[in-house]
Amino acid sequence: MARDDAVVTTIDLNSDLGENVPDRIVGDDEAMLRVVSSANVSCGFHAGSPEGIRATLRAAVAQGVAIGAHPGYRDYEGFGRRATDVDSATLQAHVEYQLGALQGLAAAVGGSVVYVKPHGALYNTIARDERQARAVVAAIRAVDRSLVLLGLAGGVVLDIAEHAGLATASEAFADRAYTPEGLLVSRSEEGSVLHDPQLVAARMVRLAQEGVVRAVDGTDVAVRAESICVHGDSAGAIAMAEATRAALEAAEVTIAPFAGPRA
Amino acid sequence: MARDDAVVTTIDLNSDLGENVPDRIVGDDEAMLRVVSSANVSCGFHAGSPEGIRATLRAAVAQGVAIGAHPGYRDYEGFGRRATDVDSATLQAHVEYQLGALQGLAAAVGGSVVYVKPHGALYNTIARDERQARAVVAAIRAVDRSLVLLGLAGGVVLDIAEHAGLATASEAFADRAYTPEGLLVSRSEEGSVLHDPQLVAARMVRLAQEGVVRAVDGTDVAVRAESICVHGDSAGAIAMAEATRAALEAAEVTIAPFAGPRA
Amino acid sequence: MARDDAVVTTIDLNSDLGENVPDRIVGDDEAMLRVVSSANVSCGFHAGSPEGIRATLRAAVAQGVAIGAHPGYRDYEGFGRRATDVDSATLQAHVEYQLGALQGLAAAVGGSVVYVKPHGALYNTIARDERQARAVVAAIRAVDRSLVLLGLAGGVVLDIAEHAGLATASEAFADRAYTPEGLLVSRSEEGSVLHDPQLVAARMVRLAQEGVVRAVDGTDVAVRAESICVHGDSAGAIAMAEATRAALEAAEVTIAPFAGPRA
Amino acid sequence: MARDDAVVTTIDLNSDLGENVPDRIVGDDEAMLRVVSSANVSCGFHAGSPEGIRATLRAAVAQGVAIGAHPGYRDYEGFGRRATDVDSATLQAHVEYQLGALQGLAAAVGGSVVYVKPHGALYNTIARDERQARAVVAAIRAVDRSLVLLGLAGGVVLDIAEHAGLATASEAFADRAYTPEGLLVSRSEEGSVLHDPQLVAARMVRLAQEGVVRAVDGTDVAVRAESICVHGDSAGAIAMAEATRAALEAAEVTIAPFAGPRA
Repeated sequence: MARDDAVVTTIDLNSDLGENVPDRIVGDDEAMLRVVSSANVSCGFHAGSPEGIRATLRAAVAQGVAIGAHPGYRDYEGFGRRATDVDSATLQAHVEYQLGALQGLAAAVGGSVVYVKPHGALYNTIARDERQARAVVAAIRAVDRSLVLLGLAGGVVLDIAEHAGLATASEAFADRAYTPEGLLVSRSEEGSVLHDPQLVAARMVRLAQEGVVRAVDGTDVAVRAESICVHGDSAGAIAMAEATRAALEAAEVTIAPFAGPRA
Repeated sequence: MARDDAVVTTIDLNSDLGENVPDRIVGDDEAMLRVVSSANVSCGFHAGSPEGIRATLRAAVAQGVAIGAHPGYRDYEGFGRRATDVDSATLQAHVEYQLGALQGLAAAVGGSVVYVKPHGALYNTIARDERQARAVVAAIRAVDRSLVLLGLAGGVVLDIAEHAGLATASEAFADRAYTPEGLLVSRSEEGSVLHDPQLVAARMVRLAQEGVVRAVDGTDVAVRAESICVHGDSAGAIAMAEATRAALEAAEVTIAPFAGPRA
Repeated sequence: MARDDAVVTTIDLNSDLGENVPDRIVGDDEAMLRVVSSANVSCGFHAGSPEGIRATLRAAVAQGVAIGAHPGYRDYEGFGRRATDVDSATLQAHVEYQLGALQGLAAAVGGSVVYVKPHGALYNTIARDERQARAVVAAIRAVDRSLVLLGLAGGVVLDIAEHAGLATASEAFADRAYTPEGLLVSRSEEGSVLHDPQLVAARMVRLAQEGVVRAVDGTDVAVRAESICVHGDSAGAIAMAEATRAALEAAEVTIAPFAGPRA
Repeated sequence: MARDDAVVTTIDLNSDLGENVPDRIVGDDEAMLRVVSSANVSCGFHAGSPEGIRATLRAAVAQGVAIGAHPGYRDYEGFGRRATDVDSATLQAHVEYQLGALQGLAAAVGGSVVYVKPHGALYNTIARDERQARAVVAAIRAVDRSLVLLGLAGGVVLDIAEHAGLATASEAFADRAYTPEGLLVSRSEEGSVLHDPQLVAARMVRLAQEGVVRAVDGTDVAVRAESICVHGDSAGAIAMAEATRAALEAAEVTIAPFAGPRA
């Protein structure tokens, strides 16, 4: 995951996919797979169904998009957004089960899982809760230690993973405002979510080329990111992702997966 | 799976395991794993939980018991006993998902899945329904074509699997009465389930040594079986399984897995 | 449910609602509640969540729309569209549970449930399967025998309900073609689903005023219907429902609930 | 819920029931219903199934045992023992849904729900978390404000309920050790759970007659309790409950429901 020079000229675009079931379509996976280089695919605990996940995996393989597992809490009704106090053994087994399930579906369509990005409340919890972070890291190591863990820059789970010998990568969020400390502005604050595709695209070009993002106080803040998360389940999501990709390409930034076999 | 002589002197004992969750214990997995040579382990759709399944897998690895996947319909409340008219794509994806999930948990405890025995209503349905049988066979082939399919002797799924190039094995049921045609007497008929451990054990010795079972009309009927299913979730189940194993061993029948690496 | 003269001048419009959860919006309940007079509200087994269902119930109460329970099979992943072979005692208890749950939520927002329209595969099954139909009727009678059962004209469940002393009502489908026998043309046949809002609206005016629908062979067929089902979860659904309502109002047909207290 | 004199001579015995499904029997409801005067019946979110719950309700009606709703978090796999950070609107709707569902099943067997005792992690959370406690109280009031709330003596939910105008009752635990402050000794401490039926029975006679329990330091501590909880899902549970009932009866303490119609 190391960078070989100060100016990043290659970056990954990732998005959450595989969350649809028939009659409950939350995102246009086909369209998003033409934009991103990495797909965080639901493992069925927080959203989606095996056949819908399989269809997304098949499309990802066809598009040459890298496949990541996107495990969440056992919280289908709440879309994995409810923090749950699961004991460590249960959480580890839940993640192992989900990783295996996605590997099975990926194998069935001729693909393979190359990274892991936890979902929703689990993503947020393991950025700060050591106990749950250790359980997730233990699960990844137990199932396949070649999997790369993608997480929030600065989150405790990345430190724990690195100490456990896992490869890691960190991500920035295209449509989110940053504090001068390089943290995300809380969603509860005004201006925390950006809606202008051109502004978002320009910010991500700077991130890719200079490694900095303009913070809410007007200063530049360094943000380490091998990947940029573009959201897929809101109105205008595809347009914003396309604008970001177009701007990066216009700036001669290469868009490529951060994990998995490369040519 | 071929037999090399008329008198079978090796046979497998299998049982359904991994169906417990904390507070809802339906069988004594630890005790049963000291008796059987193959464990059909729940994949979570009809019973069990990832952490409970994992504990059973760990114990199976410790005991040297072969691990089989035991996928079922998505019917947790009904213990997988409700026949469901799922379309083929959904059923295939459901089985692929479950196989992968069990592989993930097995890998996490240092084991591997070597065969597949569908559960409950799915087991019964694919013994006669070609469409669903094809979906299950397609799932196994897509995930790992080295997996052996264990099913009811004479069921259509075994034919379909063999034509698709999968290895198969068939099983007899220790505690069930047989018709003169070699079929199971329906559970709704009196005398269909046997309760005397010594009688059951003696029948299984004959099956292993002579390949026949005494049918309800007193005639002997040939039953092809590489494995004997002993039930684990009824009162007296462990005792009956132990009696069967003891009788087989006393008759110098070797008890060994039908699938997977052998010494 | 009796008609007081040959020309029907009052009819009900119903639609399936309460099937949304946060992040998985399948229909615009607020908009549809401004069009229909009766709302078939999900009871949580096939779709929706308690808080989403509650929000729909609150909006229905605010709009003066009659509330019906819309129970389905325990098949959340499959949206209640998978036929399931549940035993009668289980099905009866499932329906009783769902009716009670919706009554609880309705009471909490100051409303009450006045009718029942089963959902999806359950709706179709009980139109022809006597055993399951009897279980559903028994459930309704056991929980509240003042509930009216809304079903497919000619379905066996309506006969069984009437013999059991329940009030019944039958419905027509706005966007479906009819055979000369008054049955729905199967969805698998071309032309079975109508897409032109003006055509649909004109057909429903004739149904309301003359009790007939033009069948696919060009003849008129009598269809008994106290209510018209307008679908809410497809593109253009709201527009078609609005066109139907506008045409009925222009023809001086009164749109009012078929069940519950009237002024 | 008031006591009319200092020496309590009437007390209730309650137990958690309705948590069985076919093949997953966790307690002997029939036996326990011959011992207790109040049944906390699962509402399906943490355990049980509608048909199993219905069977327990039918037996409770036949035995004249008072019926209470026993709602929990949406956590079937974890038996409702995982604390979950649900927002207030969701929690309120979840409780309303469960109360209604149990009312529906109770009505179907000729019974009615007269009180509410939350389950597991929800029970513990609302004893100290005001936000979740308010949501539960709001749900009870919205569905049926004649329901009595049964909770842990001293828990914040009882205060909130009383201020909201709900009737309340508090309970002691037969098999648990108490601190000198009248709190339960944590399960993680040695000696926190009592196993001797005769000792437990004698303690509960003192509680009923004198309103005190011997604490772990040997002092007597006052414990207000209109009801005694006897656990039903552990080995020896029935025997301990029977011993407690026998001792209370021998001491001429009347065992009767704390809620519902009395002669």
